[in-house]
Amino acid sequence: MAKQTPRTLSGFMELLPAPQRQMERIMEILRETYSLYGFTPLDTPVIESSEVLLAKGGGETEKQIYRFQKGDADLSLRFDLTVPLAKYVALHYNDLAFPFRRFQIGKVYRGERAQRGRFREFYQADIDVIGDGKLSILNEAEIPAIIYRTFSALGLKRFRIRVNNRKILNGFYASLGLSGKAGDIMRTVDKLEKIGPEKVRDILTGDFALCPEHAQEIIDFISITGDSGAVLSALEARRGRNEIFDQGVDELKTVVQYLGGFGVPAENFAVDLTIARGLDYYTGTVYETVLLDHPEIGSVCSGGRYDNLAEYYTDKQLPGVGISIGLTRLFYVLGEQGMLDPELPTAPADVLILPMTEDLSEAIALATELRDNGIRAQLHCEEKKFKQKISYADKLGIPYVIFLGEDEIRAGVVACKDLATGEQTKLDPKATIYRIKAGLDARNRGTVIRE
Amino acid sequence: MAKQTPRTLSGFMELLPAPQRQMERIMEILRETYSLYGFTPLDTPVIESSEVLLAKGGGETEKQIYRFQKGDADLSLRFDLTVPLAKYVALHYNDLAFPFRRFQIGKVYRGERAQRGRFREFYQADIDVIGDGKLSILNEAEIPAIIYRTFSALGLKRFRIRVNNRKILNGFYASLGLSGKAGDIMRTVDKLEKIGPEKVRDILTGDFALCPEHAQEIIDFISITGDSGAVLSALEARRGRNEIFDQGVDELKTVVQYLGGFGVPAENFAVDLTIARGLDYYTGTVYETVLLDHPEIGSVCSGGRYDNLAEYYTDKQLPGVGISIGLTRLFYVLGEQGMLDPELPTAPADVLILPMTEDLSEAIALATELRDNGIRAQLHCEEKKFKQKISYADKLGIPYVIFLGEDEIRAGVVACKDLATGEQTKLDPKATIYRIKAGLDARNRGTVIRE
Repeated sequence: MAKQTPRTLSGFMELLPAPQRQMERIMEILRETYSLYGFTPLDTPVIESSEVLLAKGGGETEKQIYRFQKGDADLSLRFDLTVPLAKYVALHYNDLAFPFRRFQIGKVYRGERAQRGRFREFYQADIDVIGDGKLSILNEAEIPAIIYRTFSALGLKRFRIRVNNRKILNGFYASLGLSGKAGDIMRTVDKLEKIGPEKVRDILTGDFALCPEHAQEIIDFISITGDSGAVLSALEARRGRNEIFDQGVDELKTVVQYLGGFGVPAENFAVDLTIARGLDYYTGTVYETVLLDHPEIGSVCSGGRYDNLAEYYTDKQLPGVGISIGLTRLFYVLGEQGMLDPELPTAPADVLILPMTEDLSEAIALATELRDNGIRAQLHCEEKKFKQKISYADKLGIPYVIFLGEDEIRAGVVACKDLATGEQTKLDPKATIYRIKAGLDARNRGTVIRE
Repeated sequence: MAKQTPRTLSGFMELLPAPQRQMERIMEILRETYSLYGFTPLDTPVIESSEVLLAKGGGETEKQIYRFQKGDADLSLRFDLTVPLAKYVALHYNDLAFPFRRFQIGKVYRGERAQRGRFREFYQADIDVIGDGKLSILNEAEIPAIIYRTFSALGLKRFRIRVNNRKILNGFYASLGLSGKAGDIMRTVDKLEKIGPEKVRDILTGDFALCPEHAQEIIDFISITGDSGAVLSALEARRGRNEIFDQGVDELKTVVQYLGGFGVPAENFAVDLTIARGLDYYTGTVYETVLLDHPEIGSVCSGGRYDNLAEYYTDKQLPGVGISIGLTRLFYVLGEQGMLDPELPTAPADVLILPMTEDLSEAIALATELRDNGIRAQLHCEEKKFKQKISYADKLGIPYVIFLGEDEIRAGVVACKDLATGEQTKLDPKATIYRIKAGLDARNRGTVIRE
């Protein structure tokens, strides 16, 4: 028969079993952590009607969308999890209790130009809190705590959550009469570190025709750095510009004030006035998260507060705050950087049982007992040489091998070998289970990521 | 602004939070149970190149496939998890260790005619064991054990795993010289219960032009019922028809023999000679699983042994055995039948904290302590009346509400109310955590499904 060469599309991540287990572990940690904060899991369809999904229309994303006809239907694959959430909340509004806290970990699709580290199918891991009409600032203060607990549980230490408030930026530029140019200006001052203040000043006074005083004021403002206390003091000193600016300062102070109680250490957190996160969508606190030793990656967890989740679907005012992790890209980068701990078990089983008798009944009973005790056990009954079976366990990283021959069965014991240490015990099944469990506990003590 | 009416496509399941949590719990149980048997999780792309996905070509499925162009690429959404597995194993053959045991729980797509209970996007939950060249019969005996443990963990009791062996069927029909008509005959005798033996005989001798002796022999054969021992004895008595028949009997005997050791009770298992599971693909043991009180649903978990997983992609001989649960449909049916236990918690949080003070620091610290102890806690700081907050907890089924006012803070205690019993305690945080954990353990003791 003629064969079709098997291949996976470029831009689509397909992992081998060991890295897949690392990925699953990361997802498990995200699910657990998000759940601790009262977020409920959601799952929305990958396919939506194009008119619904693209209600907001246009923009950069539209070209990337996987859109197609099926029968009479004009369909599209979701390109993020936010639009489906907006649809969900508008559609099921009467069945939901607000504030509505949901997380979703799901695949999204963007037909980007294929290149190394860019994916067309990728997981996003999102959390959002949606209010009905209003939403307390407390939710904005809680988000960094969730990021902190999530990343810590993954094993990351050297990361920083950067926070800003869009009201401060909007108020500041409005006070200079520069609201219309704010977008362009922010994109320019974003390059401060890269091109230096002189160059920034030139662009501001040249390209954007700002007066030198305004340019200087902007550079001074954006140069405010230091620990959170210092930045807040500098902002305090600038109070009175306008109501929106002051409101932003109040909100930022509240967010910073509560962070300690939420357990976020000072070194994992910074107020950063350069963070804007796009222009229109966010209206309050905004977040970025950087790996301190890998700033080149950019933000690995971003989001912010918005005023109107579902304005394309409903008249209801639905403010919210949320963050998103680009999970597939993060996983790829962690792998590239050698940050995924190879010590953490990725084996499909904890124990490989090698029956040494014709009749498999005893081996089967033992496998069943192990499984009843939560131990992942695999029977290896294939026609292979003993050595091949051991190297199978080795290749998969299965930590324990159990041999069960006539002698052991008669004596009511099992021979259990720790493949890492070579240590072999002959104990009864109960004691063997105890030993294996202790060993597994020790092995599983690590984290997915090591720094 | 003009609004787009939000809607979800018909044939696409989108659950509210409470049923979604039930669904998540089911998936968690599947993942855990499959893992106990040494299966490793896989995740393959939803989109594949059409030439790869449709290498086998044709058939009923092809019309249902979501197939579209994106740029120059001819793409299709996967319609099952078996073809992607075949591609995966062929593509990554050199990186895998055999036997390769994988599970995959993922969405698949079929553009079927939309009707109640039929889905166009649905989850399949598959496990497969793939051998390289050969695969021990032991794997075929283990599959019913996995089905049994999975369904038991979900809370099902009244189900039966029906097993047959295709070699027995093939051998039997070959011995009558009826291999060519075997497919048609099996589809007819399948209706035995419904239309009775007389009618079956008429069709066999009429439509298929069988001699009366052959027709009688077929009806006799297919009428063999009783417990596994009785059916096996009847098969023993028919030994010697041909090699393939005898081999099938041997295999079936082995499978039945080992089931006890695997912990499958006799009442959850039956040998059923009417089961064929399609015609070409399966070559050994085949499985169906029925809910005894809901036979109308048909099989909820099916599969079997096959000889050649990836023949369209590789010359390698890759025999395997696998089963698949149509999870979305099963979930839908369980819901329809009222079999999903409403008692099992579906709340997004275990505790709702209602701070009674302006300063939220103490409430935040308490929430953090609860979360550190694995308790899912939500702070409710919205501007709502006390009564509204309680009814929020009620609506979501959050079991505990904690009030934290000046008095409690001064006394170092928290007021914690069990909303189900109305019982309220004032204890220090540690004792409160202990009480909540005990209560949650009791609440979570149930299973997703109740019969």
